[in-house]
Amino acid sequence: MPLSMNREVFITCAVTGSGATQDRSPHVPRSPEQIAESAIAAAQAGAAVVHCHVRDPQTGAPSRDPALFRKVTELIRASSTDVVLNLTAGMGGDIVFGPTERPLPVNEAATDMAGASERVRHVAECLPEICTLDCGTMNFAEADYVMTNTPGMLRAMGAMMTELGVKPEIEAFDTGHLWFAKQLVEERVLKSPALVQLCMGVPWGAPDDLNTFMAMVNNVPSDWTWSAFSLGRNQMPFVAASVLAGGNVRVGLEDNLMLGRGQLATNAQLVERAKLIIESLGAKVIGPEAVRERLGLTKRMPA
Amino acid sequence: MPLSMNREVFITCAVTGSGATQDRSPHVPRSPEQIAESAIAAAQAGAAVVHCHVRDPQTGAPSRDPALFRKVTELIRASSTDVVLNLTAGMGGDIVFGPTERPLPVNEAATDMAGASERVRHVAECLPEICTLDCGTMNFAEADYVMTNTPGMLRAMGAMMTELGVKPEIEAFDTGHLWFAKQLVEERVLKSPALVQLCMGVPWGAPDDLNTFMAMVNNVPSDWTWSAFSLGRNQMPFVAASVLAGGNVRVGLEDNLMLGRGQLATNAQLVERAKLIIESLGAKVIGPEAVRERLGLTKRMPA
Amino acid sequence: MPLSMNREVFITCAVTGSGATQDRSPHVPRSPEQIAESAIAAAQAGAAVVHCHVRDPQTGAPSRDPALFRKVTELIRASSTDVVLNLTAGMGGDIVFGPTERPLPVNEAATDMAGASERVRHVAECLPEICTLDCGTMNFAEADYVMTNTPGMLRAMGAMMTELGVKPEIEAFDTGHLWFAKQLVEERVLKSPALVQLCMGVPWGAPDDLNTFMAMVNNVPSDWTWSAFSLGRNQMPFVAASVLAGGNVRVGLEDNLMLGRGQLATNAQLVERAKLIIESLGAKVIGPEAVRERLGLTKRMPA
Amino acid sequence: MPLSMNREVFITCAVTGSGATQDRSPHVPRSPEQIAESAIAAAQAGAAVVHCHVRDPQTGAPSRDPALFRKVTELIRASSTDVVLNLTAGMGGDIVFGPTERPLPVNEAATDMAGASERVRHVAECLPEICTLDCGTMNFAEADYVMTNTPGMLRAMGAMMTELGVKPEIEAFDTGHLWFAKQLVEERVLKSPALVQLCMGVPWGAPDDLNTFMAMVNNVPSDWTWSAFSLGRNQMPFVAASVLAGGNVRVGLEDNLMLGRGQLATNAQLVERAKLIIESLGAKVIGPEAVRERLGLTKRMPA
Repeated sequence: MPLSMNREVFITCAVTGSGATQDRSPHVPRSPEQIAESAIAAAQAGAAVVHCHVRDPQTGAPSRDPALFRKVTELIRASSTDVVLNLTAGMGGDIVFGPTERPLPVNEAATDMAGASERVRHVAECLPEICTLDCGTMNFAEADYVMTNTPGMLRAMGAMMTELGVKPEIEAFDTGHLWFAKQLVEERVLKSPALVQLCMGVPWGAPDDLNTFMAMVNNVPSDWTWSAFSLGRNQMPFVAASVLAGGNVRVGLEDNLMLGRGQLATNAQLVERAKLIIESLGAKVIGPEAVRERLGLTKRMPA
Repeated sequence: MPLSMNREVFITCAVTGSGATQDRSPHVPRSPEQIAESAIAAAQAGAAVVHCHVRDPQTGAPSRDPALFRKVTELIRASSTDVVLNLTAGMGGDIVFGPTERPLPVNEAATDMAGASERVRHVAECLPEICTLDCGTMNFAEADYVMTNTPGMLRAMGAMMTELGVKPEIEAFDTGHLWFAKQLVEERVLKSPALVQLCMGVPWGAPDDLNTFMAMVNNVPSDWTWSAFSLGRNQMPFVAASVLAGGNVRVGLEDNLMLGRGQLATNAQLVERAKLIIESLGAKVIGPEAVRERLGLTKRMPA
Repeated sequence: MPLSMNREVFITCAVTGSGATQDRSPHVPRSPEQIAESAIAAAQAGAAVVHCHVRDPQTGAPSRDPALFRKVTELIRASSTDVVLNLTAGMGGDIVFGPTERPLPVNEAATDMAGASERVRHVAECLPEICTLDCGTMNFAEADYVMTNTPGMLRAMGAMMTELGVKPEIEAFDTGHLWFAKQLVEERVLKSPALVQLCMGVPWGAPDDLNTFMAMVNNVPSDWTWSAFSLGRNQMPFVAASVLAGGNVRVGLEDNLMLGRGQLATNAQLVERAKLIIESLGAKVIGPEAVRERLGLTKRMPA
Repeated sequence: MPLSMNREVFITCAVTGSGATQDRSPHVPRSPEQIAESAIAAAQAGAAVVHCHVRDPQTGAPSRDPALFRKVTELIRASSTDVVLNLTAGMGGDIVFGPTERPLPVNEAATDMAGASERVRHVAECLPEICTLDCGTMNFAEADYVMTNTPGMLRAMGAMMTELGVKPEIEAFDTGHLWFAKQLVEERVLKSPALVQLCMGVPWGAPDDLNTFMAMVNNVPSDWTWSAFSLGRNQMPFVAASVLAGGNVRVGLEDNLMLGRGQLATNAQLVERAKLIIESLGAKVIGPEAVRERLGLTKRMPA
């Protein structure tokens, strides 16, 4: 009944994402080398976990080429800086429809829908400690694009992850996604206790007002580990919100490019800022080994 | 700060829906005549609004044939029982994908995706006082089917409804749908104040626990009119929940087939039960004329 | 995460209270005989528990004379109608101060402050299955009267009740009272799991809006048994609110005199109305034996 | 519906309080000179408002001697550092009862109950821009002491403050206190919009969990200005919580003595820490002139 804030917090840095941000900041890493370097700098700044997408090294366009994921993985594992590796498995579930008078067939150029095995292929190859599982379907952000993950797809992908021994980080973008995540645990597709990321303020998922946030927090099973984030200028406020509500935090260029008005940030700077907030609140930032212990993760060694 | 319950409540009866319920209860109406009859009986029992889908008169399968909607409309308007007519515009946004190893192309037999004009055609022809606008995209219920309404589609359909002078009842199945509804009002696609239905407990949208429900209620603009419902055995509990939280109620065979354990219900019986609950709480059930006044609706006369 | 409503609900009837209501309704029982009779009628109507105060048989003024409590107890125990007996221990903690320019000494005529043993005497003599423990101090209702129960007093009274084997029903009139109740359990003054009544809408304790109510409900330990009520015309709405939120219900003339506008109620009628609401929501009303089993109570036999 | 955090925040420093803290830290100021000096240092560190109690300069015991308040007021006004002056009017409402077997007469040595005029005398003499009004009665903290402010007393004191043109800062220690504050505004005892401090985590008032906090925040009228705080190691977390929820912040030695484990703090250090948190969240700290403008305060000049 007193404030049950988290006093031992881990920071995840979402290093690059797959948004069209690569031309809006020179700090958004593109090549595997840049991504690994930025991830390692984030770890040195205090991130226990790095969440990585990959991009076309030339254009910066989002990619899901397993070779790029392998390269990022190798570079991070080869580093003397320890960090928990978290690879996205969110790609390959994007639909853009045709015009409103004729939505089907889909806009093929803009659509990227892959099968479950293909979406998990880089996870199977890289065996990161964590990979993400976007736990639902919704209109995603301003673009007329639908993030598409059906129950059947999630059961298939979740089962593959469990089989691989890679911990899924469930991404819940709205209250119904969290509900389905609990269903996956109940069906034993995912192991209990699970790990969940509450993704707040992503249009058109759950808004990031505190009433909605607390409704989601109140619905996370008490033995799960969770984290939360919001976007843009609400990224740092949500560092505080999540810690206060008992969770861990995620920052990084995937979700926010700015350190302040007119100041483009690096990943390391965003992690430093998060660390400053967490410590100012009286909590402690924990490292990769403590996270592995809490989540039962095993670090894979460089190949 | 005291309980701000709604003391003048209107009941919407969702008469038949488009779920595969027609073989689970003999009371689910199929033909236009049965639907109109069941709607009128619901109105006589106390429903101020009837929300109608149509079905194939032979098989009971859900349909969006404008001729069937016209027939239902004519029959209800010709009745001596007054009621506000609310037609669904939810159909034509259903996708079922291919197998999880090859989701595209979609399963054509099970998919029904139509253009905006086609989805609103029966509304333009029938000019009901209200039609629904399902305000988002999500995995819908147990079937591996995606309710698909992109922002672009919603802007197109919403603009058509506004142009026709038919009041949209926004259906919000999760917190993000309500957020987008506010966006549509801000963009003036929909008029303010709007009318919204909080659809709780539909897998995999917002669960119907009270914390989530209150987070949604707290986010409805104070000048909007709203209603809420849940499914199955939580239908009657949500009659109470919605009234207590300041809203109106929806019951009917679309959402629940049972009056009690082992007792199949009629629409009129469900409305009677809702009326009993509302009046037992000390509130008053209002009729179609009071609803029209509150929402600024104009009744269309029989052609 | 689905609605966790209580599907097996017990009703407590608060038969007469100690408010100045005796002249506002002929149905407020005064003498022990009237109180017992009204309690038994309430039990026959469906109340599993009767919560009794006593009054001066002549004037109807509130009293804490043990002889009157003994008489009520005997009459109820002698009845062929079974019911769980719950006696107030709330009296003897009332202060009215002097004028605002000179608050001390207290207004002796209006003040009734007794020692712990004296406040629990009738409980020791009657050994009801349950007695109440008002878990804090606050300005009480419109009168300039302070309900005074200090931590020291509550520890003393609570220990006596535990020693007597009488189950305390903690009355929490605001969020801080519930907090202190948990403290009493932590200190083992009260046994775990405890029984708590959330007393909503009593000026100037917790208001009965649903946000405040849910904040209290969310703070009740999951293994405790709880009930809730509000006053006046919000009595019946709170029957529904409490059941929906997972609790049990309390109605009766202590909290509300009216069945509807202009209709004075009897206790039995209020219980019937509560039963109607509970059953209309699809829940079951349970009886005294089921309550004893759930709370581990032992019925004392007539002396 | 997006996070409605406060992006222009003022800090109140509660400089010394009236708790028995003076022997637990050498930084708790005692004499008027020390209090003024600490207040001015806090203002220089970023506090727009200083909330002052006075103490016996020798013993450090809490006092309400108007001469001490005058001295503090003069020293602060004479400083070249601008700050809004907020004097407590909380004292003179303390009761400690006799033993639990004989609570009355009160323990006179430990009790301090004064009349309304006497409690407001130093306010009338000093005419600070703000003075506090503790809006209820409750068991206060671990000591068996009752903070006693009856409705009648609050109406009397509130009317005097309004008459003097001093802005009351309503202190709400639980949900019922906030309810009564709204009643005082409705009765026009206090002017609208009011100023309220949500005092969280003070035993045995509202606990400082976020659900309870949000229930209180949701009940603050939208046009009021509000602030919030919690105690001890939750002081800094509540700086973030209040800003995130749309409020202003209070820190200072009245509520917390420590900067970190084993590090005794000064007021200026606590304000600096709060400022760091606020700015790290992306909000701006505003100064005394901006506060006066927002609250319609007029600064009194040195006599």
